[in-house]
Amino acid sequence: MLKSSPIEFHAFEKRNRAALINSLSGFKSANLLGTMDSKNRTNLTVVSSAFHLGADPALLGVIFRPHSVPRHGLENLLETKVFTLNHINSSILKAAHQCAARYPKDVSEFEATGLTPLFKEGFKAPYVGESLIQLGLEVAQHIPLEINGTEMIIAEIKHLYAPQECLQQDGYLDIEKAQSLSLSGLDSYHKTQRIERLSYAKPGSWPRPLDS
Amino acid sequence: MLKSSPIEFHAFEKRNRAALINSLSGFKSANLLGTMDSKNRTNLTVVSSAFHLGADPALLGVIFRPHSVPRHGLENLLETKVFTLNHINSSILKAAHQCAARYPKDVSEFEATGLTPLFKEGFKAPYVGESLIQLGLEVAQHIPLEINGTEMIIAEIKHLYAPQECLQQDGYLDIEKAQSLSLSGLDSYHKTQRIERLSYAKPGSWPRPLDS
Repeated sequence: MLKSSPIEFHAFEKRNRAALINSLSGFKSANLLGTMDSKNRTNLTVVSSAFHLGADPALLGVIFRPHSVPRHGLENLLETKVFTLNHINSSILKAAHQCAARYPKDVSEFEATGLTPLFKEGFKAPYVGESLIQLGLEVAQHIPLEINGTEMIIAEIKHLYAPQECLQQDGYLDIEKAQSLSLSGLDSYHKTQRIERLSYAKPGSWPRPLDS
Repeated sequence: MLKSSPIEFHAFEKRNRAALINSLSGFKSANLLGTMDSKNRTNLTVVSSAFHLGADPALLGVIFRPHSVPRHGLENLLETKVFTLNHINSSILKAAHQCAARYPKDVSEFEATGLTPLFKEGFKAPYVGESLIQLGLEVAQHIPLEINGTEMIIAEIKHLYAPQECLQQDGYLDIEKAQSLSLSGLDSYHKTQRIERLSYAKPGSWPRPLDS
């Protein structure tokens, strides 16, 4: 049986500390962020930092690391004001992870990894053809976070492509059925297995499983 | 075989839209946020919005919904400047979900659900005894997001309690081994199953599985 004890992470060496701290928020989303610059050069990068911000308007946040590392995706979306998010699924795991490599700006991660760029409805950023859940977003706000030099992009979801079979009657999208993966730490990819959906919590009654 | 098609979410009824849009960022972290106010009243609330922000300093962000709903946890942490995050695991799933119910401020979710408040090292916020991964955080910054009335709290991780057996040599914390759960949408809880950890991505070579 597991028991918790204090972990003195302040004394950890830099890389080990990064691996540890990245594990602490819990499971993370796993997306490929697609952009194209004004010279029509496409870029794909792995983001584990996309998070829900609001349903109406439909807003997401994405965090980008400080300027000390190349961030072609961020540069492109600030230039064109649009980008895509594409759920990473098991069938493209290695190719998706490879998009985190530091390719020069004139090398497209689509070509380097074999993933398929898809352009739809005149949207100026490429979707990932192999991804089953694809979002087209417009940049709404750019907030540099002075506390550590990261940058937050707030974006509005304008387009959504997903399998009709994954959409449930009450609006819930079954991303597990679409084989979307979850990330933990810097490099660990996980399949999921639903325990249950639980009813809306109210004082005085106990949650019950929803049919799904 | 699943195929993606456009989903016209703009036409969705409000609650269905919320269920859908909450599913789109991908899998989310599942935490209980613990606080205590200046009258020593404890509060626990479910947050699926905690996200990694940086490793050094060790920073997390948490998003809170607009003022239109009760937010005792937010009120308390703004008052005391400290809070805890505790990974939700399978053994406490229903009790954890129940903490999302709108109890009055003088009812502690610990008492209402049977979860165990733990105070450690003089820290002024309660940890959840049944949780195997527990973080003690100090509020570093409060950023109201005018775009939709949500509020972002940036906090520094000051204390970490976790099972030594889950800590790997390179610093990675195996949160799956600690049975931490993941959330999708508003109410779907998922166990995970690691596919693999992948090596650091570099141009010119393909990712290989790490031993773990």
